[in-house]
This record gives sequence, C-alpha cells and structure tokens, in this order.
Amino acid sequence: MGFFDKLERAAQRSGSLLCVGLDPDPAQMPVPDVAAFNRAIIEATAAFVCAYKPNLAFYEALGERGMAALRDTLAAIPPEIPVIADGKRNDIGNTAKAYARALFDELGFDAATVNPYLGGDAVEPFLEREEKAAFVLCRTSNPGARDLQDLMVMTPGAEARPLFEVVAEIARRWNNRGNVGLVVGATYPEELKRVRELCPEMTFLVPGVGAQGGDVAAVMRNGLDSAGRGLIINVSRQVLYASREKDFAAAAGLAARELRDEIARERERALAES
Amino acid sequence: MGFFDKLERAAQRSGSLLCVGLDPDPAQMPVPDVAAFNRAIIEATAAFVCAYKPNLAFYEALGERGMAALRDTLAAIPPEIPVIADGKRNDIGNTAKAYARALFDELGFDAATVNPYLGGDAVEPFLEREEKAAFVLCRTSNPGARDLQDLMVMTPGAEARPLFEVVAEIARRWNNRGNVGLVVGATYPEELKRVRELCPEMTFLVPGVGAQGGDVAAVMRNGLDSAGRGLIINVSRQVLYASREKDFAAAAGLAARELRDEIARERERALAES
Repeated sequence: MGFFDKLERAAQRSGSLLCVGLDPDPAQMPVPDVAAFNRAIIEATAAFVCAYKPNLAFYEALGERGMAALRDTLAAIPPEIPVIADGKRNDIGNTAKAYARALFDELGFDAATVNPYLGGDAVEPFLEREEKAAFVLCRTSNPGARDLQDLMVMTPGAEARPLFEVVAEIARRWNNRGNVGLVVGATYPEELKRVRELCPEMTFLVPGVGAQGGDVAAVMRNGLDSAGRGLIINVSRQVLYASREKDFAAAAGLAARELRDEIARERERALAES
Repeated sequence: MGFFDKLERAAQRSGSLLCVGLDPDPAQMPVPDVAAFNRAIIEATAAFVCAYKPNLAFYEALGERGMAALRDTLAAIPPEIPVIADGKRNDIGNTAKAYARALFDELGFDAATVNPYLGGDAVEPFLEREEKAAFVLCRTSNPGARDLQDLMVMTPGAEARPLFEVVAEIARRWNNRGNVGLVVGATYPEELKRVRELCPEMTFLVPGVGAQGGDVAAVMRNGLDSAGRGLIINVSRQVLYASREKDFAAAAGLAARELRDEIARERERALAES
C-alpha cells in the first residue's frame, strides 16, 4: 500500500487531518527521558491523528541517545499510522540514495521531507521508492522563506512568477508516480492558495499552525482540494507542551483532540462557503 | 581561532588545497569496519590535506553503528586539521539551532554545509557561531543542478540572472562575520568563474573533481581568488577507493599526494597565466 493510501485510511479512521510533530526539546519536556516522553505523547494522541512527523534535528542534537530514542519512538507508533521523517534532506544522486536508505530502510519511515534546490536527480532516489512518499519544500513557514522563495523567476512565454510557484510546478512534474507531496506553511495563506491552484491534486504537509502563528481557518479556506482533502496539518509545540507538568500526556491528548475537532469544523465551514 | 584561520594554517602546513571526503560505502570498501577503514585513510592522507569532509548520509545509512563510526572517525583526525560536516542541513530557525548544536557541539565539527532555500533565519543559527563556518550551497556538482539553480531571476534595476548567482550575492551579504563559504561544483567551470567574480573574497568548497568528472586545471583557472587562494578541492571516491585491495591505505595516500601536487601545479600555472 502506498503512502497516500495509508494516510487516507488513517485520516478516515481518526476523522483527523492532524499530524503531531514529535520534536522533543529537553528544555521544555516535563520528564527527562525522550523515548518515555514520546511514548506517552503517542499513547495519548494516536486516536486523534492521521500521521506523526519526527523532526530529525531534535534527535541528532542528543547524539547516540537521541538516535536510540528515535528508534524507540518509531517502535511505539501504531503500524497503521504513517510516519514522516522531517529531515529536509538533499544531496547529489549517489548520496541522496544513502539518505533514502537511512530513512526508509534503516529507520523504516513511510515518507520524508526533501529540499528541491539540487534538482530532480537529487530527489529521484526518494521517489523511486514507489510505496514511500517525498514532500518537497515549496513554501516554508519561517519569516526568511521570502529571501529565496519570493524571488521572481522568468518563465518561458509567461509572466515572471515567484520561485515557490515554479517549484510547485516542478514538483508536480516529478509526481508521475503519484508519490510526491509539497510542504506549504500555514503562515502564508495567500501563497498556500496559489499553490493549491497550481497543484490541484497534490497533498500538502502544512506546518506553522500554533506556536508559529498559522491559522487553521485560513489554511482550510485556501488549501483544501476539490474533494475537500489534500491537507496534513502539522502541530508540534502546541500539543507536546500543552502542559509542562506531570499531566503533560493527558493535556497533549486533549490538545490533539481539540485540534482535530477545530480542523474538522473549519474544514466543514470552508466547504460550505466554497 | 576561526575556521578560515584554522583552514589557512592547515593548507600552509600541508602545502595542499585538497580536502578528502570521508564517504565510506561498504559496497566499495576493502575492509568491513567503517571506523577502521577511515582511520587507515586518515593516517595515510593527513599529511596531504587541508581539511576532511565526512558526508553524513553515509553514516546515517548504517544506523547506530554508522554514528559510532563517525565519532571514531572524528577522534582519529589530527586536531589541527579542520573538519567539515557535509549534511546540507536546513530548517526553520528554531530547528536549525538544533542542527547547529548537533554538528558543532555534539559532534565537534568545525564547519557545515547548509542549503539556502529556507532563507537567512534558517542559516543564522550556524553563522552566530563565529568560530565555526557554514558553506552555503550555491552551484552543486550534479546534473540536476540546472533544474532550479539556472532559473532566471529578475533583479531590481538589473538584468535577469540565474538563481545560483543571486544565491551567491545573498550569501555574501550573510558573510558579515566572515564565516560564510560557498559550495560550487567543479563540474561547472563557467559558473565557478562567475561566482568568483561576484564573491571575490569568499572561500569555495569545490566538490566534483574525480569520479564526477570535474577538472582540476579548469577549477584553478576559474576559481582562485586574487591572492591565489580561496579554494578547497574535495575529492572522495578517487582517494578512498584508489585500490580495492589490502593496499587501499597506501594507495589512498599516494592518490592524495598526487592530487595535492596536481592542484599545486595547476594553481601555479593558473597564476602564471593570469
């Protein structure tokens, strides 16, 4: 079963488009052990999510014990819930193969985020794994996204367009096997709308809701596809650190349920208005 | 001492602009143990290099034993030789901080390669470590580099220019602390020349010589700065797998010495002609 089928089933089962970002930060965690923290978060939130997304940076920052915690974390995720490796990996073809092997085979992730700057041959090693998926960075959620992604690019026989739009179209061409998604930040709703126009049938992984200030209602109005789907809404800090006390897992479960319901409500509203 | 000072001293000491890429591939290694392989390579080549550059993908592909081998490898490099983490990392500011911590503190690298697509706030966590350095991907050595990096960008009050040139200028602006370098592939000598014109005083990390087909003479003609420096020539496979037999370390040492001497010869020739 391909990634997007697995995702669709998980979304149906949970009634949720929420992905929880498993980004453990020891400075914010109420318990010292990363794997124990993640296990408690997963147990409390699994019923309310369509996917999990560990960001590899947080594990690498902890050295070997971080990598061991990542494996424990992956083992704790119910097998029917897809897991996205957020590593934004990128390298020349020969080396990108090693990254794909690391994430898909060595660690067993279902999908990975990739950076498009190196071009098609650097993304291909991820895409040739047809049962997996790659989410290409298109419009990221940070303020600096404007620095490169808004550069105006001349396109043959058309108006100049911002780089992120050109990347969206390039990624659409890379999607001939149907296993490419896009990363589009919730913090840029107008850009999200534009990318949806350009890529009506692709699934967007949307970070930036919560601590980064993105708004669920705006994401739903601008990002749903014509079938009322095509979005994975990632939230990390607002769930993980809903409480800094002993009740952190219960608080995370409550936050995830509320987010699931808020997303569903705003989805219904957006569909009713469209 | 900052990275570029450490690099300059190592280059003076060895008379070399060669960096050996420590990219262990079990399918090509004549001995099974990665750390033992790297230790032998380092011992045989240390006199002939100005830097080492492990590409993290090759270690990650081996899981925990790869990460342990990376630590053993780093411990085996003489402390006066600078070491560049080739991970092409990139993420939003909060997360890029974790990557910088992983590479500079947890692993002790002197510098790291970074991808510019996310913009300035995603690179800043690497740059605020003034004693370290970041090499920004500008023109990569792979065929797919053309896909994004050659897109023609409109610039205010000037002609349209390829994206990699705009990235070079952006990286130059990020270089206010003097700790930014650029990655420019040897496989694109004309583009290398252009980036040198745009960034006359920055140091370029140049992959692509050897297995990828880049030519040392063309790199020297097009890439040296006005002081006859500013280049780090990375070679991986041509050194690591100079022999697939028991004499691999001696063969690697010989290959590194020959590359050092070829680079020095072509440098002299380029300076004499300029």
